Amino acid sequence: MNMYEIITKKKQGLPLTAEEIGFFVSGVTDGSIPDYQTSALLMAICLRGMDDEETFLLTDAMTHSGDTLDLSAIEGIKADKHSTGGVGDKTTLVLAPMLACCGLKVAKMSGRGLGHTGGTIDKLESIPGFSTSMSDDDFIRTVREHGITVVGQTADLAPADKKLYALRDVTATIDNISLITSSIMSKKLACGADCLVLDVKTGSGAFMKTVDDARQLGRKMVDIGRRAGKKVGCVISDMNQPLGTHVGNAIEVNEAVETLRGRGSEELRHLCLVLGSVLLVNAGIAKDRAESEGMLSASLDSGRALSKFMEFVTAQGGDTSVFDGERLLPVAPLSMDVLSPADGYVSSISCADVGMASLLTGAGRETKDDVLDLSAGLIVHRKVGDRVRKGDAIATVYSSDEKKLESAAAKLLDAYEFSQEETEPLRLIHEIIM
Amino acid sequence: MNMYEIITKKKQGLPLTAEEIGFFVSGVTDGSIPDYQTSALLMAICLRGMDDEETFLLTDAMTHSGDTLDLSAIEGIKADKHSTGGVGDKTTLVLAPMLACCGLKVAKMSGRGLGHTGGTIDKLESIPGFSTSMSDDDFIRTVREHGITVVGQTADLAPADKKLYALRDVTATIDNISLITSSIMSKKLACGADCLVLDVKTGSGAFMKTVDDARQLGRKMVDIGRRAGKKVGCVISDMNQPLGTHVGNAIEVNEAVETLRGRGSEELRHLCLVLGSVLLVNAGIAKDRAESEGMLSASLDSGRALSKFMEFVTAQGGDTSVFDGERLLPVAPLSMDVLSPADGYVSSISCADVGMASLLTGAGRETKDDVLDLSAGLIVHRKVGDRVRKGDAIATVYSSDEKKLESAAAKLLDAYEFSQEETEPLRLIHEIIM
Repeated sequence: MNMYEIITKKKQGLPLTAEEIGFFVSGVTDGSIPDYQTSALLMAICLRGMDDEETFLLTDAMTHSGDTLDLSAIEGIKADKHSTGGVGDKTTLVLAPMLACCGLKVAKMSGRGLGHTGGTIDKLESIPGFSTSMSDDDFIRTVREHGITVVGQTADLAPADKKLYALRDVTATIDNISLITSSIMSKKLACGADCLVLDVKTGSGAFMKTVDDARQLGRKMVDIGRRAGKKVGCVISDMNQPLGTHVGNAIEVNEAVETLRGRGSEELRHLCLVLGSVLLVNAGIAKDRAESEGMLSASLDSGRALSKFMEFVTAQGGDTSVFDGERLLPVAPLSMDVLSPADGYVSSISCADVGMASLLTGAGRETKDDVLDLSAGLIVHRKVGDRVRKGDAIATVYSSDEKKLESAAAKLLDAYEFSQEETEPLRLIHEIIM
Repeated sequence: MNMYEIITKKKQGLPLTAEEIGFFVSGVTDGSIPDYQTSALLMAICLRGMDDEETFLLTDAMTHSGDTLDLSAIEGIKADKHSTGGVGDKTTLVLAPMLACCGLKVAKMSGRGLGHTGGTIDKLESIPGFSTSMSDDDFIRTVREHGITVVGQTADLAPADKKLYALRDVTATIDNISLITSSIMSKKLACGADCLVLDVKTGSGAFMKTVDDARQLGRKMVDIGRRAGKKVGCVISDMNQPLGTHVGNAIEVNEAVETLRGRGSEELRHLCLVLGSVLLVNAGIAKDRAESEGMLSASLDSGRALSKFMEFVTAQGGDTSVFDGERLLPVAPLSMDVLSPADGYVSSISCADVGMASLLTGAGRETKDDVLDLSAGLIVHRKVGDRVRKGDAIATVYSSDEKKLESAAAKLLDAYEFSQEETEPLRLIHEIIM
């Protein structure tokens, strides 16, 4: 077996065998296959496709290309959630304590990532004292004791994906559903949870621009996860405007805490209920969505999820006194309102521009060495369908730098479009695959 | 403009512009584009194709990626011939003196190549004293004086092709007609001839297995050459058995000399007449194929082509006394006949096996550092359609090594298949594109 034959086969549109896919993935991982052969195969995969069996085999080989987490020492059902990425997505911060209150165990190993804001790890680090690194033993122990732990990635999870993704990123071979599926699912499967819910975003601010594409990806990922023996569900949710209202790091933690206090955006709460209910039903904890949403709502309304969040923060060394009373994390000292230029309705908000505005405040990374300003970010006060009057503050940007503030505000204004005619609010949930 | 966008465009099946193709070729040539991006684009080209305009632009950019020969100091019409490669193809050695006798100028820069025998350069070097290296000035002067010069490649001709071919060879991206066309034609166009005839081989011993594929390649190359302002014709010739009878280096020179003496295989003579007539008509020297074949036949029958060959050999330092009288170049000391195992007819000869047998005698190179045994090779005495009797010598192998001799003879016997039923001889010329 050699790479030339494997490339030839895929170029001709033939399915690859388990042995061929295994040879490819191990050669990518150990560096024995040169990048130019890998990229030729990736392009052939993009243009010829992979069937479900090949996609499963690729995912499986990638899952086992490095370490896999063994969560067996944790009693109960281990749950995980993955979002394909969007603007203002602080769902994990709210959902994890809700799930823990309902009896699931959330043992999360999370990345930092590049983008308009930091990743979940960066957001949590905006809480004073919060530590995202711990030994494997402490990781297991903390989940057992508190039901939630979120740490940075220490294990060498799916190293094949890291190498393949870097190459796909520079060879225009990102947008193939089998490659996307294997990339996401190999990392998730290596994390060892029993139950997984996938939040596949769709819209202008998401990688999947249409609901159809998102549905196709969601179904493929669910299928692959189930073939791997996991309980997997999926929610297709809208990303044609930011999720909730806050975009940044500390700023997003604040929105999450407000939501746990029962005062955040209805949208964020709704998404958490839907995602959580998929997990609770799949885990066998609730018999249907109505029952599971009832349990999850109760965790919020009773204040138990908020307490669980504080318990989790404390367990990881975070200082919860910053949230005493009505308090929230401090945000950047300079702020500027973005004013509506006219009377009317918000007809659209370009998610890409909102993300760019967030990056301009200093809240995001363009390269992996960039240092985040965890206190920077923005809040949108008006969303699609909202009525505005000329001069209304439709959003506010926060930064530590006057110039960044101005350019972020200008970009954010660009993101908005207005109409004289009444506009329907956007639908948040497009589809649920239980 | 960047490579990512260019790859994306081709992946989507869109045509590339002159600027994009120029950016790609110059980046390949100067090494600024990494191989993994190049191979991704090559695979996208294989699976999405290139139209005629793109193929021309690619060829043109590759032609100008390095040196181009300036033959303007040579009066008259400069002619060149290219074969896509086959077993026993010594056509240039016979055709070049015929063309020079008819008034064309043959200024050839030729490679050594890998394969079952050496290239034209290696074959000529089997003549004692023959030198294939000379200064540019001497090259021009010798063509002016004698009408033919054949030298090894010194100029940096189409360096983009060298890099692209090396990458195509390891990424299964060889078999795309636009890439093949640009590879062959860029080198030929850089050589500066006015008139070109392409000998596209088809059959089991050729890269193009079917006449249809060969015709498609031939037409594409003719089109591209004409767009570049050259007079180009093409002959689709058969390679389902070796061309003529002799395969090797000195051995092929001997067959060429015998053909110039009017005693070689009818097949080789016929191919030279057809190829030459395309050139003479395109060059405006003859009005049609009948007239041009008459001129070319006369050059052979009068002995003028043989004299021209000896003049050419002498001009490049070769000792023609080895051909005095009936003499020919010496061949390897050990020989072994391959005997027919049965009565009947030769029904097929595997060209690939004949090539392998030649390689086994020591006449070919597997890697570029292998040293050729110029005296080794083989002669086939029976070809497809010939009647054989059990025990007839159907072929003879020549080598300097007993073991090589035996393995070559065994391989050559494998190449033959026999039938009890009468078999038609193979047709040599499938199509002529004037």
